[in-house]
Amino acid sequence: MATMKLASWASSLEYSTIPESVRKAAIRSFYNWAGCAIGGSNHPATIIAHDSLQAFFGAPTSSLLGQTATRVDAQHAALLNGIASHVHDYDDTHLETIIHPTGPVASALLAFAESQPQAVGGEDFLLAMIAGIEAECKIGLAVWPDHYDVGWHITSTTGAIGAAVAVGRLLKLDAERMAHAIGIAAAQVTGLREMFGSHAKSFHVGRAAQNGLIAALLAKGGFTSSTRALEAKRGWANVVSAVQKLDELMASLGKAWETQKNSFKPFPCGIVIHPIIDGCAQLKPDVDATGKQIGSIRARVHPLVLELTGKKKPKDGLEAKFSVYHGGALGLLYGKATPALYEDCVATDPKVVNIRDKIEASEDNSLAADEAYITVTFEDGSEVEKHVVHAIGSTEVPMTDEQLTAKFVDQCQSLLGGRTQQVSDALWRIESAPGIAQLIRGLY
Amino acid sequence: MATMKLASWASSLEYSTIPESVRKAAIRSFYNWAGCAIGGSNHPATIIAHDSLQAFFGAPTSSLLGQTATRVDAQHAALLNGIASHVHDYDDTHLETIIHPTGPVASALLAFAESQPQAVGGEDFLLAMIAGIEAECKIGLAVWPDHYDVGWHITSTTGAIGAAVAVGRLLKLDAERMAHAIGIAAAQVTGLREMFGSHAKSFHVGRAAQNGLIAALLAKGGFTSSTRALEAKRGWANVVSAVQKLDELMASLGKAWETQKNSFKPFPCGIVIHPIIDGCAQLKPDVDATGKQIGSIRARVHPLVLELTGKKKPKDGLEAKFSVYHGGALGLLYGKATPALYEDCVATDPKVVNIRDKIEASEDNSLAADEAYITVTFEDGSEVEKHVVHAIGSTEVPMTDEQLTAKFVDQCQSLLGGRTQQVSDALWRIESAPGIAQLIRGLY
Repeated sequence: MATMKLASWASSLEYSTIPESVRKAAIRSFYNWAGCAIGGSNHPATIIAHDSLQAFFGAPTSSLLGQTATRVDAQHAALLNGIASHVHDYDDTHLETIIHPTGPVASALLAFAESQPQAVGGEDFLLAMIAGIEAECKIGLAVWPDHYDVGWHITSTTGAIGAAVAVGRLLKLDAERMAHAIGIAAAQVTGLREMFGSHAKSFHVGRAAQNGLIAALLAKGGFTSSTRALEAKRGWANVVSAVQKLDELMASLGKAWETQKNSFKPFPCGIVIHPIIDGCAQLKPDVDATGKQIGSIRARVHPLVLELTGKKKPKDGLEAKFSVYHGGALGLLYGKATPALYEDCVATDPKVVNIRDKIEASEDNSLAADEAYITVTFEDGSEVEKHVVHAIGSTEVPMTDEQLTAKFVDQCQSLLGGRTQQVSDALWRIESAPGIAQLIRGLY
Repeated sequence: MATMKLASWASSLEYSTIPESVRKAAIRSFYNWAGCAIGGSNHPATIIAHDSLQAFFGAPTSSLLGQTATRVDAQHAALLNGIASHVHDYDDTHLETIIHPTGPVASALLAFAESQPQAVGGEDFLLAMIAGIEAECKIGLAVWPDHYDVGWHITSTTGAIGAAVAVGRLLKLDAERMAHAIGIAAAQVTGLREMFGSHAKSFHVGRAAQNGLIAALLAKGGFTSSTRALEAKRGWANVVSAVQKLDELMASLGKAWETQKNSFKPFPCGIVIHPIIDGCAQLKPDVDATGKQIGSIRARVHPLVLELTGKKKPKDGLEAKFSVYHGGALGLLYGKATPALYEDCVATDPKVVNIRDKIEASEDNSLAADEAYITVTFEDGSEVEKHVVHAIGSTEVPMTDEQLTAKFVDQCQSLLGGRTQQVSDALWRIESAPGIAQLIRGLY
């Protein structure tokens, strides 16, 4: 029943019935995704994938975000934008499942929408995207946490199904063909956690987008799979997870909206470091105002912080992502942590190393994962303190639109130059766009 | 260690060190695969996939077998030839794992070889194919039977890795890049048994070919995955199977050759029916010679036969594939069972139904799976009998080259017409071909 239930729900979803807060969350999700895709477009993983597969590119219908005027066929645009959007680990997070939901869905949907002869309007686009994100997060919740624990990269394994539902909704598939699309996507279970730390991690996201895109197109053409693909004895959920609660989650479709729970990362590193960076960034004006020299910094943090990110002397940018000390130093020195501040040269910059070495972090079991206490002691013995109750980017303290815009500008400035603000403005107005392809092409 | 062990072995494999019997098995495997791919090229699943994805096709470098002079990009040729080769369930079988090994590997390899500017000779092609088939079957054995029992379609889940190794060998990847190719392929776990009975089953095979093809190309470009992709805690084997014996199987590489164990189906239906069809076909001349009317037919069979294929009155061709009675009738009436004899019209042909209704089958626990006793009783009370010890196509009674040729001709005649024999001859001579692309293109 779960497969047909999801298929029927997605096929009949209408934009007018989606709460305003959900639509707003979808716009923020797409905006944040686009910034990440632009920001990751010149990463080696994206470039290698482009160059390695270039011989297969078909008619150039769909944009590679961030790459001025470069278009490829929709399948490859889905792959490459998907890789780019995830490669800095800077994309969105559905906190209950740690799915990064927009990557697979928007990568498939935008590439496909651009390839269509008829204009796809902003509302139709967002409707399809919301259907896809709801599908992927509900299915993810149904197999969480066992599915992730055993070793699947849940973003891509559920993301293919989300992408199929999204493209299927745009294609106006009826419930039965939507079910076949879900099945074809479900049969392509891509993403192993063993790949974390390699290029393949972001490949998962792009491949999931492709898997879903072709699933929807095949189903539209009459290709069959199973209308019990998710719940059957040898169907998706039983094969990829020891426990599942599909019926419960499918019953919540359209009642509890997962899109609305999406969160955005203010900093391109593990979420456990965020309270320290946030607190240090908040202390920076006070510290600067004193004009005093810092003697030492003490931080009390959730135990996971040191387990996951306890690297005292990171030797390059990648290691710095696993260093709470590097993160704290960035907050105090720059009031932020951006991809540029995770370049190799920053990890070894004497100014950063000097502050980093002064930070001592200790575990405090009484703290929440998004909480921290920070005390800066100056050389004269005076102190300033900060208690971060919920870090920026958490459910309780979401990033504001202005903060998302600042993140976008930071990610895109070096690639888009003087057009950055104009691109940002256009993306914020997606809901009223008469045509998505025209919107995207108008950016260049 | 398993991933690097496999990668090193495949990277350094040389054609001269492969036993003659293994090379011969590879030629037979490729020949049989080509016939299946040609025979399945006009199946609805193949046609729907072609038409649904046509908008994405890139530069036409690679042939769609059976479709005169139609070429597409190598990725789509891999997909479509892969679907076609599996869609009639008529391809080869590695009996210990029930992997159909040549589909994913040859589909990727042929498409890619055709796309290369430099000619790929027959020996290099077969070398790469053997490396791929060994990889996929060894990995399959390492997770058999749990992996299949839980619901994975083992042909495609292992086939992507086989295809990556094959294309990687053709590309002369060094061991480290080969390991990354294996990892990228391993992360794309495609194929659920729930899809059996739908188009998606054969899609798995084509998609596995694509998954492996792009894995090898990405790795060649420097894209990274994990050099412990197969054996790591959250790597392939542990994620997709509760039990695994990778080390044992990797130690047998180049010692026990899986390619040599490959078997070929004489009949396009479940292997458990084969002893009945074989026995009835062997009885046909005797029955015909008597000129008498058949009164009844009694068969004693392995218990699995009735469990899996006990359909008494199949109403169409697909149901007929699950009917031991239909199979027996074909043997007695036509002396064979071919795809044409599993068309809907044959399942309802009064001549077939008449014989089918006279067959009674009973279980006999003392029989082997490839064994059967058949007794035909004429209306005058006289009888003829046949004891099939090992059905044709089993390890003990493999199909001869002549029988494989007859199967090929039957599959291809309606598509290739007068060129059938010439195509068959060319394919048998693959080992000495100076260029695979030239060989394939010369067929049309």
